Amino acid sequence: MILSQRIQSLTASPIRKLSPYADAAKAAGKKVYHLNIGQPDIATPAQFMDSVREFQAPVIAYSNSKGEMFLLKAIQKYYAEKGMDYAIEDIFVTNGGSEALIFAVMALCDPGDEIMVFEPFYANYTTFCKEFGAKINAVPTSVENGYHLPSEEEIEKHITPKTKAILLTNPGNPTGVVYTEEEQDMISRIVRKHNLALIADEVYREFVYDGAYHSFGTMPELDDNLIIIDSVSKRYSACGARIGCIISKNKELSKQVIKCCQARLCSPILEQVGAAALYTTPASYLEEVNKEYKNRRDTIVAALKKLPGVKASDPKGAFYIMVNMPVDDAEKFAIWTLENFAIDGETVMFAPGNGFYNTPGSGVNEARLAYVLKSEDLERAIYILGEALKAYPGRVEK
Amino acid sequence: MILSQRIQSLTASPIRKLSPYADAAKAAGKKVYHLNIGQPDIATPAQFMDSVREFQAPVIAYSNSKGEMFLLKAIQKYYAEKGMDYAIEDIFVTNGGSEALIFAVMALCDPGDEIMVFEPFYANYTTFCKEFGAKINAVPTSVENGYHLPSEEEIEKHITPKTKAILLTNPGNPTGVVYTEEEQDMISRIVRKHNLALIADEVYREFVYDGAYHSFGTMPELDDNLIIIDSVSKRYSACGARIGCIISKNKELSKQVIKCCQARLCSPILEQVGAAALYTTPASYLEEVNKEYKNRRDTIVAALKKLPGVKASDPKGAFYIMVNMPVDDAEKFAIWTLENFAIDGETVMFAPGNGFYNTPGSGVNEARLAYVLKSEDLERAIYILGEALKAYPGRVEK
Repeated sequence: MILSQRIQSLTASPIRKLSPYADAAKAAGKKVYHLNIGQPDIATPAQFMDSVREFQAPVIAYSNSKGEMFLLKAIQKYYAEKGMDYAIEDIFVTNGGSEALIFAVMALCDPGDEIMVFEPFYANYTTFCKEFGAKINAVPTSVENGYHLPSEEEIEKHITPKTKAILLTNPGNPTGVVYTEEEQDMISRIVRKHNLALIADEVYREFVYDGAYHSFGTMPELDDNLIIIDSVSKRYSACGARIGCIISKNKELSKQVIKCCQARLCSPILEQVGAAALYTTPASYLEEVNKEYKNRRDTIVAALKKLPGVKASDPKGAFYIMVNMPVDDAEKFAIWTLENFAIDGETVMFAPGNGFYNTPGSGVNEARLAYVLKSEDLERAIYILGEALKAYPGRVEK
Repeated sequence: MILSQRIQSLTASPIRKLSPYADAAKAAGKKVYHLNIGQPDIATPAQFMDSVREFQAPVIAYSNSKGEMFLLKAIQKYYAEKGMDYAIEDIFVTNGGSEALIFAVMALCDPGDEIMVFEPFYANYTTFCKEFGAKINAVPTSVENGYHLPSEEEIEKHITPKTKAILLTNPGNPTGVVYTEEEQDMISRIVRKHNLALIADEVYREFVYDGAYHSFGTMPELDDNLIIIDSVSKRYSACGARIGCIISKNKELSKQVIKCCQARLCSPILEQVGAAALYTTPASYLEEVNKEYKNRRDTIVAALKKLPGVKASDPKGAFYIMVNMPVDDAEKFAIWTLENFAIDGETVMFAPGNGFYNTPGSGVNEARLAYVLKSEDLERAIYILGEALKAYPGRVEK
């Protein structure tokens, strides 16, 4: 058989590609602090398994292609409580936020079309685009201005006739940036002026630490342009459930997305049952979790400040921080740390930064750290990172 | 926003597109016998929910991108017992057979490339191809020769430089055909001669009624060409679990498919737990189910023989039968039956045949019937179908 150029052009996930090195380190008896992957350690609310255990059906049958009504209603209610009124017809349950993104790319892009992102950005956006022959149109942002957006003029300069959408993660992964209302207004003006879709990946919506959050879904002027990507994965620490959704008030879009849903038949039923129950979790759960992550954010920011030569962003949301390190190559450093470094048998793993950039050569000395560990473990992990930086033969003083 | 040509070119599922008419019939108080969808009524083995209920984990975390080891091993063991030895590295767990098909298309086709199928064929193959800009290259078969394959010469005539794979469903959906060993040898020669992939969709493998089944996986000469599509959906009456797999000994392919797996992160964990338990179901379960479907097959074939002007295939496997009916248009007839016909408040729904063909104008007076109901219900449903045929204003005598 002859394999497609398409699949050969895909790159391995920067978050997972060093896993074999971590496995080897563990096999050699090392403890590895995982800062590479956004897998929260917070317990999933008991409602999830409680409702699954109660599920009774003689036949595990196909469910509704766009999601079971009990889950659609749970999602609708969650949004209504945030002041966003969506009809059941506007909501489509997907296999995680991943499939919601896939449906958005499919709906908007023919081969050669472009989706604008602000780099650094979530690496799988590139994969989902490449799978469908679409291209990433990456507009740079930098640690110096906290990964906030460039000016309206600068963004418009990057728009081409092939640009079909702007895809934003807010709060940001990997940057932790939370856009200001002014930035959101600017994006709104741009997408409306150029008749673009705005794909708003808001899966980290509940993780905002320094002020209120303002969903793009609360901006009625965007109704025709907006596609919201959402998921229970991070919100309720249920990444393994793979339940997300795509939401839009654009009726033409909804008419098309249902065809994608029908082709893959349906989302898994048990996870839909569990996910619907998650939405009944009392608000206090999210408040507690938010407090815990804020604390972790403060811990990791303070710990990183102590490391000479390390420059970090000041994340306002999500649970990631991008760091610029005094190394020749963060990927080499990551492998070296797993293979050659330990303190009392413990080492650390992080995601090399280059995988979050589209522009060749960018992010080479950067890394994404996920602060998904308890504060004491985070302090220990950053201490180990600092000592590794001192010992690493490829250290570069700037 | 501007929608893609891609998504606008997708067609609604022939199996599901008439659902609004069925819903309306039910709302009006009619009972509808569903022969339109391959949703078995057989109880899912208790092992599924039993194992799910026992699942204990504080965090519903991401699982392995290519599937959890316990499920990979369960699949491996199932194949080994059938004389097919696959390494764990050869097996990738997917979100149903649907995602396995999607990965196969992605791995083999760039835009404009072709996948050869024998029509009539499972309608979503077209959707999965269109999603990736690939084309269906449909070779006709007919009810007259039981939907068996054309000659080697005839098949080779259809191969073009763009043909990357032959995709076969065996046993067939919607035809119920089971290919002979001679046909399988012929296909093997063709794919090896032309360096094509052979995508063998064998999800109905356990449903064969008149003799032994011979998987393409038992033909070692095909190791480099073969991609097996499999699923627990039909085998264990667990369609809603959405657990399938893609299997191949082609190492170049495996190296690529893992990237698709990683991009969408993982399959849902609870359903993997349940699916692994399904593979521990005693062989007697599948034997009983097989006996039940054989009985239903005999029932529906006998019942259809009584209907004047109806020509049906003689299905040897799966649980579908294609019928040629004396009507102007099977889709119009299907809608008319749901809207205007009932006997004692009961009516019947089936899938119009044109959706299973790629060639325009084909299958217009055909329908796919799924024999997934108890024999007495099947007899009743076919009786209603026969009476509807008598009363239908668009009846055409041939």
